[in-house]
Amino acid sequence: MKLPEKTIERLSEYRRTLFNCLSNGKTHIYSHELANLHSNTAVQVRRDLMLIGFSSMTKKGYDVKELIDLISRILDSKDGQNVAVLGMGNLGKAITTYFNGKRSKLNIKATFDVDPEKIGTFQSGVMCYSINEFEEVVKRENITIAVITASPNAAPVLAGIIEKAGIKGVLSFTSTPINFSDNIYYEGYDMITSLEKVAYFVKERSLKKKSN
Amino acid sequence: MKLPEKTIERLSEYRRTLFNCLSNGKTHIYSHELANLHSNTAVQVRRDLMLIGFSSMTKKGYDVKELIDLISRILDSKDGQNVAVLGMGNLGKAITTYFNGKRSKLNIKATFDVDPEKIGTFQSGVMCYSINEFEEVVKRENITIAVITASPNAAPVLAGIIEKAGIKGVLSFTSTPINFSDNIYYEGYDMITSLEKVAYFVKERSLKKKSN
Repeated sequence: MKLPEKTIERLSEYRRTLFNCLSNGKTHIYSHELANLHSNTAVQVRRDLMLIGFSSMTKKGYDVKELIDLISRILDSKDGQNVAVLGMGNLGKAITTYFNGKRSKLNIKATFDVDPEKIGTFQSGVMCYSINEFEEVVKRENITIAVITASPNAAPVLAGIIEKAGIKGVLSFTSTPINFSDNIYYEGYDMITSLEKVAYFVKERSLKKKSN
Repeated sequence: MKLPEKTIERLSEYRRTLFNCLSNGKTHIYSHELANLHSNTAVQVRRDLMLIGFSSMTKKGYDVKELIDLISRILDSKDGQNVAVLGMGNLGKAITTYFNGKRSKLNIKATFDVDPEKIGTFQSGVMCYSINEFEEVVKRENITIAVITASPNAAPVLAGIIEKAGIKGVLSFTSTPINFSDNIYYEGYDMITSLEKVAYFVKERSLKKKSN
């Protein structure tokens, strides 16, 4: 089943919220509740869940645990996937700390840097290797996904190394778009774009207020 | 002129690329070149630029500087906007370092934390205040935008403080969605969702390969 990117994003967000529900002892949830928690509509939630074949709505709403299980079967690989983080500056550290232990099916197995002070030590709980060892470590640890937090100047060099090592998916936080071959699923995120978007809509609203 | 969110994101990305062009001495660019750098189509680029009224295509392509100026007039506020970062862990530090000096029209004026070791010191070059001083500092420094990097547990408390201080726009990197009133333009980003999305498409591709 190939689902649209936006649906996948929402399923991941629903699951995160459902985990919170469970840990707060909430066993059932209505579509409109789930929608409210995501600034979404109940219709959208029901459409997403229909798309993945979930229909067991009871009088008390959806069974939270059942829904988590179904979403997990869709999102996760059976044996999990292993992840490497490239660049252990503040952002690399934040991401490694943030992910580890959050999802049992996605494991950060190695981190990489060029700084001799970091190489050979644990960074945010994960062994840091020299970028020169990338291909070797990727094969040994069966790593399929790379997260790039390195500086824009380093990105083109890293792209070649990543491609050569047989990585299948890349999530990049560098501000330069990187061109990979079609063998790699690429997702880029730039914090400046998000901030500029917020700034634009704040400006537009204040102009609108003034003209009213 | 109220533009769609996706157009604003692309304009921000184009501008970033155009800045790179300029610093590499490239003065003109064709729509298909700009498209290639963003895994986009030339038609989309032309449509976006038409939407903002840019039509001065020469034989050598678009004038890079002219295009930067026009996009800047759309995205930026005349007098700029001031930004606060809440939470000075690794992510807060990464964001503050990353932004500062990159865009003259968006200035990180203050950072906030609860750690007494950080309060009263410069963090990534910006003064760090106690979260208790938030409203006072926001008014004094004319801050309109807040970036939240604090832990999910802290988010609901911060939401109240942010709302009360009169902040107009929020960019949140916490993994829990936050409900603000309609006075605040809210944009949330969760790294786990992006990573789960990459993992899903990597999995789908490998299953497809096996079944071929």
